[in-house]
Order: sequence, then C-alpha cells, then structure tokens
Amino acid sequence: METLKVIKIGGNIIDIEKEMYAFLEKFARLKGPKILVHGGGKLATSLAKKMNIKVQIKEGRRITDTATLDIITMTYAGKINKNIVAQLQAYQCNAIGFSGADGNTIVSVKRPIKEIDYGFVGDIKKVHPETLSLLINNNITPVFCAITHDAQGQLLNTNADTIASALAIAFSKNYQVELYYCFEKKGVLTSIDDEQSVIKNITTQNYKSLIDQGIITHGMIPKLDNSFYAIKNLVSQVHIGLPDMVFDTTIPHTLIQDS
Amino acid sequence: METLKVIKIGGNIIDIEKEMYAFLEKFARLKGPKILVHGGGKLATSLAKKMNIKVQIKEGRRITDTATLDIITMTYAGKINKNIVAQLQAYQCNAIGFSGADGNTIVSVKRPIKEIDYGFVGDIKKVHPETLSLLINNNITPVFCAITHDAQGQLLNTNADTIASALAIAFSKNYQVELYYCFEKKGVLTSIDDEQSVIKNITTQNYKSLIDQGIITHGMIPKLDNSFYAIKNLVSQVHIGLPDMVFDTTIPHTLIQDS
Repeated sequence: METLKVIKIGGNIIDIEKEMYAFLEKFARLKGPKILVHGGGKLATSLAKKMNIKVQIKEGRRITDTATLDIITMTYAGKINKNIVAQLQAYQCNAIGFSGADGNTIVSVKRPIKEIDYGFVGDIKKVHPETLSLLINNNITPVFCAITHDAQGQLLNTNADTIASALAIAFSKNYQVELYYCFEKKGVLTSIDDEQSVIKNITTQNYKSLIDQGIITHGMIPKLDNSFYAIKNLVSQVHIGLPDMVFDTTIPHTLIQDS
Repeated sequence: METLKVIKIGGNIIDIEKEMYAFLEKFARLKGPKILVHGGGKLATSLAKKMNIKVQIKEGRRITDTATLDIITMTYAGKINKNIVAQLQAYQCNAIGFSGADGNTIVSVKRPIKEIDYGFVGDIKKVHPETLSLLINNNITPVFCAITHDAQGQLLNTNADTIASALAIAFSKNYQVELYYCFEKKGVLTSIDDEQSVIKNITTQNYKSLIDQGIITHGMIPKLDNSFYAIKNLVSQVHIGLPDMVFDTTIPHTLIQDS
C-alpha cells in the first residue's frame, strides 16, 4: 500500500511566521500523498481581545459562543488557512484549503451540554474521504483548519488533533498512514523542564503506568488518546515531536505503538 | 456542449441572512454544472470599524493595506465563504470553498501604482480551470470568494465581478457558459429611482450611446465592461438582475448581447 502522511502543526509553528514558512517550504517538497492539518495558534485569542470578546477556556477547551465561532472561522478558515495555501503554492505545492464543511468531508455533532456548555464545539461523527481521495490522486494537497459542520448548516469548532486523527483513520483502509503531531517540544517529555527527556516509545502497555506515575499529565493526555485511537484503527505510525521529525525521522521524538 | 452557470451574488443578498438562505436553497436545487462567486457585502467594513481600522474607498475600490487584506481574508474567505458552503451542504449541494490560491485557480498581479496606490489589489492574469473541472465533473460545486494570489505567496483582493467573468471565460472553451450578475436591482435601469425602468437588452452597439446619453453611469460601467469582455470571449449569455432571474428566466432583467 502507498504511504499517506497526515501532518498536524500547531503552537509556535503557527504563531511565528518565520517558523511556519520554514516548515511549509520543507512540507511542499515532501514526496507522496499528504494532508496538512493546522491549529489556530494565538491569533483567535488576540483577535477576540481586539474586538472585546471574552475568551473562556474550560479544561483546556475554548467555550465557543456565536461571536467566538465567527472569530474562529475568520482566523482559522480565513487568515491562517488561506495564507498557508498561498505560501504552499509559492513553493510549488498545489494545495486546497478545507474545513469539514467543504466537500462534506467531516461531519460533527454539537457537543451535548453536561456540566459545561461548550457552545458550538463539534465532536466528529463521520469522515467522507472521497473528495479528498480524488484530489490526492491528482497530486493536490488538502490543508485542513480545525472547523467542521453538522451537515445542517452549522459550523463547529473541532480540535485539530482530533481532526488529524480522524482523517488518518479514514484513509487507513487504502493507505499505509503515518500521523505526525508537530508542536514546540521534542516529544512527550518525562520532565516538562528538560527538553532532552523525550520518551522514545509509548505503547498501549506502558501508557497507563506513565499516567499512573504522574509522568504524563493533563496537557498531553488528549493528544495521546487521539494517537492511541488512531493506532487501534489501523493507522500504521503516530509520531509526536518537533516539525523537523517529519523530514528527518532520525531526529529524537516520541513514537506511539500498539504494544 | 453542456451548459455551465457562473453565478455572482453581491450586495443585499450577502448582507441579509434570510435573503442569502432563500437564494442558496434554490441555487442548491439548480441542475447542471455551476460555480458560485460571492462578494463581501458590508461585513468587511463593519469588522474594520470594530477593530478601528480605517476604511478607504477611492473611485469605488477599497484601498487594501495589510490590515485591510487581513480583514478581507477573514470575512470573505472565512466567515462568508464557509457559512455559504455549510448552508449549501445542508441543502444537499456538495460545495467546496475557493480563493484563487486554492488549487492555484486564479493568479493575479498586484496592481501597479499610478495615481492611486490600491495596495494589495490584484488584477487577474491567468485562470487555471483544471482542478475546478475535476470537481465539477464529480458533481461538486466551487464557491469563490473575491480573493486571488500572485503565485508567490501573496493574497490579493480582487473584484468579485471580474472573478466571475474570468471564470466564465476560462470555461467557455468546454462549456456553453451563462454568466449571471445578481444584485439588489432588477437590472440596468434607465432611471435609478424607477425599479421598472429595466433595459432589457444592451448590445455592443447601443452600449456606447447609453453611456454618451448619461443613461448608464459610473456605478454600472465596471459590471458592464466585465459583461462585454465575457461576451467577446465566447461566454454565451450574460444576465444582470435580481437573483430570481437565475431560476426563472422570464423575470425581467438585463441581457447583454454582442450585437
């Protein structure tokens, strides 16, 4: 089976233009089918502040009221997505920007209200990869922002890590899929202050004990849950670390394995 | 040859949600290949005001500095485009949002500085319709916002009427293309205050005399120039009027003809 790379970028790579461009130039040269998924960085928060819209984060997740959804749609699908696409075109990579509404690619359900009302936050229900396959087969690279829809006209704010994982899973029947979570650290660290303390392998077996020992803490758990969910659903490899690990796999980073 | 409809919407249809949804519901049901192009309405201006960014319009065109380009990208490619796409999906029309950067579909050059420096405004140089054809052949509807790129990483603000005309021309080799300019008037009027004074036919021959007589004035001339340019480049029909003319061609409106 052919290899497909699903690469998610977030954090500083989005916020610092120079880092973003350096990444995109290498990404453009990457051979073979690929999908890019990007987070929103700090731009949504700074725009909300400029517009005097209150930013509410609960348990690491953004509470998304109507005004916040507009800001997210404007920054993620507008400014960030289109600038990435234009930059990739400059580097000779034929890209098309996507939200989950485009091509009906990712359908979500609005998260039910329990203790917290997250507002217009969507949990992924179904990925339709057909249109993406059509484009990939024609050497076109989809670039996803972290927005989905409910197929009834409502856009929904959806975690970018989860989008990357869902896309990776959707293609795992027809491709050998490698999923890369790129962020500003070298991988999952045993000590957050020590950049050299990368855990090279996390398996289903040692994951639980790493949590129980308090080595893996709150911030990393959703990313790792997404990683293991992908592995259990036929994604062949999941890598977590600095963006450069995508282009040079000998660079130390965390590899997630099933056992 | 098969017919392709290129439909541009602007003005009130964008600004009034109820009108937009009514239009989109009918548009979704429209049979055959189609492309939607939308303007930005008043949203960019109102966002600029909220963010204390000065809006400068010279000779009917928006002066586009960096902050204004960001606002345009956020509102046109983000909020408006993605909400249209999500709404079309709800009406069972499989749509994908596009700027000219996506799929490298529309390449522009930054307008040279003469008397006025328009900033990041792009004049269309080349349309690459291949990716759009691929999608149209798979029953997918492209939805364009009024943004192009220079193929060197720079997004550019481009007039939506001109984008519609350029797309119509690019497809006229392989399709019988009908171009529709929908706005809040019934067509080109002999008297701006009389909604019933629609000029039913404007030809190359009577166009100049309508201008000379002062019947067609400043505001309509760019739209008509785009219309005649399309007709001269093999677009088979150009219609100007209310959105409903697209769905019922017996509704009075202006038809542009070559002679």
